[in-house]
Amino acid sequence: MNVRIVLVRPRNPVNIGAAARVMANFGFRDLVVVNPYPPSWEEARRAGPGAEEVIRAAKVTATLAEAINGCKLVVGTTSGARRRPDRPLRALPGFRPRGKTALVFGSEKHGLDKEDLSHCHALLRIPTVAETPSMNLAAAVAVCCYELVRKKERGTRNEERVADAGQVLRLLDQAVGVLEKAGFLDTQRKASHLRKLRQLALRAKLRPEDVALLTSAADAIKYQLATGH
Amino acid sequence: MNVRIVLVRPRNPVNIGAAARVMANFGFRDLVVVNPYPPSWEEARRAGPGAEEVIRAAKVTATLAEAINGCKLVVGTTSGARRRPDRPLRALPGFRPRGKTALVFGSEKHGLDKEDLSHCHALLRIPTVAETPSMNLAAAVAVCCYELVRKKERGTRNEERVADAGQVLRLLDQAVGVLEKAGFLDTQRKASHLRKLRQLALRAKLRPEDVALLTSAADAIKYQLATGH
Repeated sequence: MNVRIVLVRPRNPVNIGAAARVMANFGFRDLVVVNPYPPSWEEARRAGPGAEEVIRAAKVTATLAEAINGCKLVVGTTSGARRRPDRPLRALPGFRPRGKTALVFGSEKHGLDKEDLSHCHALLRIPTVAETPSMNLAAAVAVCCYELVRKKERGTRNEERVADAGQVLRLLDQAVGVLEKAGFLDTQRKASHLRKLRQLALRAKLRPEDVALLTSAADAIKYQLATGH
Repeated sequence: MNVRIVLVRPRNPVNIGAAARVMANFGFRDLVVVNPYPPSWEEARRAGPGAEEVIRAAKVTATLAEAINGCKLVVGTTSGARRRPDRPLRALPGFRPRGKTALVFGSEKHGLDKEDLSHCHALLRIPTVAETPSMNLAAAVAVCCYELVRKKERGTRNEERVADAGQVLRLLDQAVGVLEKAGFLDTQRKASHLRKLRQLALRAKLRPEDVALLTSAADAIKYQLATGH
């Protein structure tokens, strides 16, 4: 299945190994670990018997942005506790990915932060009870992987022709360059503006040709701003 | 739910704690541990944050026979590797207990032995892949508990708060002004570019606050282009 499991800042290598093991149990192979602490692969291997291949092939990235490169859909996982999500919320039962999909899991202690969430198209809610919402990392990966292979044979949806997350981020970089030149980001709200723009761009389901058009528009403006001075 | 989780001869107290935690996550409370080795409840508690009540109420029995006392249905769990079970095999997807039911999990290393299996009315198969069938104990408990509480209804999506078409068109007018100043529209493809931008903006499902943010960004660029000359 075209699913990447992304673990953001896991604190305990045992959990990386245990997560890799449940991935192997259900036939998933694409694991990316963002900025693990501390990255002890030996411990991870001991905790993941049967998952040697998954662990060997795992990639480590410094940022979530790198980890989701190439994915059409980025979904952050959350527990039953989150009451008022600020983006589309999907329930785990019946969730099916479309196109290359990243399932993103936060750290054991704090889950996903605002910055992480701004990279997500949607949130996937695991139906834990409100009194005890916080799951063990590997257990959360387990139920998600199980749900995805559960009755795999039920219909596949058409893949949407959307630009991948890496293309969108490159476009955003360019737009940010223009906005900085225009002085739009010289405020205390810069970080918040950037998060909002990122969310907006992801929600917009841009197609590859949209990204190309917007990129050349940004180029034209940038050129004009540079030569106009 | 009228389900008892029975762990037979677990070797690692960390797994007892982790299993208790996923039980608590999905609202299960009835845990019985058969002849654990070694029975270190302190370690189990550390591994099961949020599951203190489940662990405190857990019963320890010397035999599986005592553990299943009072149950109408006893179901042993097994992995995808077991090809020819000698008793009724149920698939996990869609499994629903009837009456007081014990779900029985074997030890980490050897699973359930013949003696254990002789206490089971049926076997419940977790759909792991044949090459990596053996699951972590807590992960196996997690997917079983999840399946039991899994509701069939599809997720509810948030109501979409999109800007109205008039707002979007006004934003587009402003963007067109900027792009004209930047010379981006001085081509034969101007009409085609404008159509594409309009389509893109409508498909993007911009929210009212997105429109406000983009409008002020466009203002900043316009001002910079004007004063830069």
